[in-house]
Amino acid sequence: MSQSTLNNLLEAPAAAVTSGAGLFATSLRDQGVEVREVDWRPPMDGIDPADLAAVMADPRREDANKLAIERIQSAGAELVGLRPASEVFGLEKGQFLHAGPPLEWERASGPMKGALIGAMIFEGLASSPEEAEAALAAGRATLEPCHHRDAVGPMAGVVSPSMWMFELRDPVHGNTSYCSLNEGLGKVLRYGAYNQEVQDRLGWMARVLGPALAKAVAQHGPIDTLAMVAQMLQMGDEGHNRNRSGTLMFLRDVLPDLANCGLDPADVAEVARFIGANDHFALNLVMPTCKLAMMAAKNIPGSSVVVTMARNGTDFGIQTAGTGDEWFTGPANKPEGLFLGSYGPDDANPDIGDSAITETAGIGGFAMAAAPAIVKLVGGDVPFALTASRTMYEITQSEHPMWQLPILEFRGVPNGIDATLVARTGILPQINTGMAGAVAGTGQVGAGLVTPPAECFTQAIKALAARAVRA
Amino acid sequence: MSQSTLNNLLEAPAAAVTSGAGLFATSLRDQGVEVREVDWRPPMDGIDPADLAAVMADPRREDANKLAIERIQSAGAELVGLRPASEVFGLEKGQFLHAGPPLEWERASGPMKGALIGAMIFEGLASSPEEAEAALAAGRATLEPCHHRDAVGPMAGVVSPSMWMFELRDPVHGNTSYCSLNEGLGKVLRYGAYNQEVQDRLGWMARVLGPALAKAVAQHGPIDTLAMVAQMLQMGDEGHNRNRSGTLMFLRDVLPDLANCGLDPADVAEVARFIGANDHFALNLVMPTCKLAMMAAKNIPGSSVVVTMARNGTDFGIQTAGTGDEWFTGPANKPEGLFLGSYGPDDANPDIGDSAITETAGIGGFAMAAAPAIVKLVGGDVPFALTASRTMYEITQSEHPMWQLPILEFRGVPNGIDATLVARTGILPQINTGMAGAVAGTGQVGAGLVTPPAECFTQAIKALAARAVRA
Repeated sequence: MSQSTLNNLLEAPAAAVTSGAGLFATSLRDQGVEVREVDWRPPMDGIDPADLAAVMADPRREDANKLAIERIQSAGAELVGLRPASEVFGLEKGQFLHAGPPLEWERASGPMKGALIGAMIFEGLASSPEEAEAALAAGRATLEPCHHRDAVGPMAGVVSPSMWMFELRDPVHGNTSYCSLNEGLGKVLRYGAYNQEVQDRLGWMARVLGPALAKAVAQHGPIDTLAMVAQMLQMGDEGHNRNRSGTLMFLRDVLPDLANCGLDPADVAEVARFIGANDHFALNLVMPTCKLAMMAAKNIPGSSVVVTMARNGTDFGIQTAGTGDEWFTGPANKPEGLFLGSYGPDDANPDIGDSAITETAGIGGFAMAAAPAIVKLVGGDVPFALTASRTMYEITQSEHPMWQLPILEFRGVPNGIDATLVARTGILPQINTGMAGAVAGTGQVGAGLVTPPAECFTQAIKALAARAVRA
Repeated sequence: MSQSTLNNLLEAPAAAVTSGAGLFATSLRDQGVEVREVDWRPPMDGIDPADLAAVMADPRREDANKLAIERIQSAGAELVGLRPASEVFGLEKGQFLHAGPPLEWERASGPMKGALIGAMIFEGLASSPEEAEAALAAGRATLEPCHHRDAVGPMAGVVSPSMWMFELRDPVHGNTSYCSLNEGLGKVLRYGAYNQEVQDRLGWMARVLGPALAKAVAQHGPIDTLAMVAQMLQMGDEGHNRNRSGTLMFLRDVLPDLANCGLDPADVAEVARFIGANDHFALNLVMPTCKLAMMAAKNIPGSSVVVTMARNGTDFGIQTAGTGDEWFTGPANKPEGLFLGSYGPDDANPDIGDSAITETAGIGGFAMAAAPAIVKLVGGDVPFALTASRTMYEITQSEHPMWQLPILEFRGVPNGIDATLVARTGILPQINTGMAGAVAGTGQVGAGLVTPPAECFTQAIKALAARAVRA
């Protein structure tokens, strides 16, 4: 270095050179410091540097990810109807869908076993839990992930032929996705409870709720759930553990037709009361809305965008746009958070449910800044909620133009998780979730925060590397 | 000063001594600086220092204000029914209630005249606007403030005998307050429009909406509107210009009974559709809820807490707890904000409506931090919304324990404006409001921000001083 260069160095205003998480650079900039960011971070533990380099060097990657984002952000979502699962999927007695990646009865956790037991009884395939368990253990049922039928199910996510499904369509890409109807909280099938209360409710839902909503939606015409999610983020919901305003908006949209489509007024009142008493009812509309967005980005060779995150209570699995239907799994973590009543960490099952499709699409844990009240449910404080959202920008490719976070001055939610960004930063997606009791039949024990296991991403990077084009 | 004291001074860590607005001290504290606040601020222009001193020195003041806050914060609010104004107030044809302090036809602004013209036609007292105007100018109608009947009315706030009123009760203090039903936006009576569209809507509201809701609420039983406001603040509403979640919650609460109380299903559907399409419907429940809180603090000798802020389109008027029914008025300011379509500042009427009862109770402009989306309606940006709420703590006695601002870590809204704090700081209450067109018949032209004129407070301080006890 010449003397004059050195002089210049000393005369010029000082600037900071940062690497690693961008929050540090942002913080410096807020203090008026000139910052030059170097795009380097310590990679995630367990990532093979050669794999990561191969994926990063894939000449298709940039365009493929751009296309993935374009498709995700242009996807529409409308509720177009409700039908029983037997009709939608051709599901027959003894066939069940479940949350998360593929699973066999033997490896199923308590709440998944409880939900399958309950569904066996609900379908009349067993008359007691013991009988149901014996039949399931003897292999007299077929289990298949919801995601394999373009469906999503919260918690255990068990779908049986008699259950009614929301049917949502993406008119832009022509995809369809499905979700069952939300039962409410407490002793419910999706948390692994199966007692008479659960059976009675499922019976009423199949007999009254599903057909009534089907009739009302048919009379109303399609309901735009993409716009509903956008509004929810303006009204304190993050779409995973808070769906209060979404539920109210759905009620508002559907009730005029529900009240005036020839139904018994007592049934109309009961349907309105049931939905109105269940702040989570809209979760089962938000999830397939998110699924439609992510389905639009499936099968784009070279793309490292994550299109699925799902848990079956035993394994956490992810899928990427560039690797088709392949699952990359690892053991599901236990959420940390707040517990109901006298329950504690020992009572909680590992992470379960397809509801992480919300985070996959950029809401839920990624949109906690939209829902500071969520911290009262899952733990943490308000600054944590803001930081959680801000941090997720580090591992996402884009910001959703329609789904905005008011308190971050209407910045779009962090959208399109890039597996290479997760691998390079070691920052795992932030999920907030309900917690099921570990013992079959228990129900919900709490709500909290959780991340996928790093293995999902090390495997995904390996698979992307194996398929990478060498420049 | 001795040498050793001077040495101590230099050796001790530096501390800042601040006076004036507390935000400065807060900001220093955030930076880890030790702050000693001196309780002095430059008083408001026009305040007589002797008056202010007399009010401050009134030995009853501290206890009186404490009692006022206690009453405000312990007040309940429940919707108990709906009845026509003729029945509620014994209002007869030719008698009208209106927003704000007392007003005569001659001094009425465009939107107030428009609303009175429309009400004359609605009541069958005139068959044309010209005929109505002539009758009003000839004194063939009686005008009386809503507040004199414990009622509140948004914008022009005109109430005529045939209009149906919400009836709310405070079970703790035994007070009752009233508000008419919200017509929606656009060409509506409260913004001074009176054409056939307005007449048809008012007719349907009196014939169908009011009686239907009355029947449903009677069957449902009381609806807790105090809790509704608390929830609204968790869901992006500030209760003055955003009442979206409140409207949805009211729908949720009332619809099961509405659907099943013997009404024609077509009417149920129409009522549900009308309310669901009007995000402001709950404003007319929020306002009497706030009125009940403030009524509880009326008539406490020595208290400098503001219990009413209201505008009639010509004058802004306030009342304090210590000065009974006396109004302290000044010319209403013009709001600044955003305009609909091609309207501009010249089209706007001065500030109008009883809706500033929301700010009087600590929500609306005081709770903008709860509703960052409000800045898209009234102007400003998100940091402004936060600052607006934070600044209002400077002029209020307390924080409402039930009404919390999530983003300020669930701090209670600034509650109980103290006229002496306004006088001492010169900080005027921040109101966000709709803007009516200045010409009768126009309707809404925009929404924006406004403050009361300082005169209201200089007069209130003078009146409090005149009644002050000398220690």
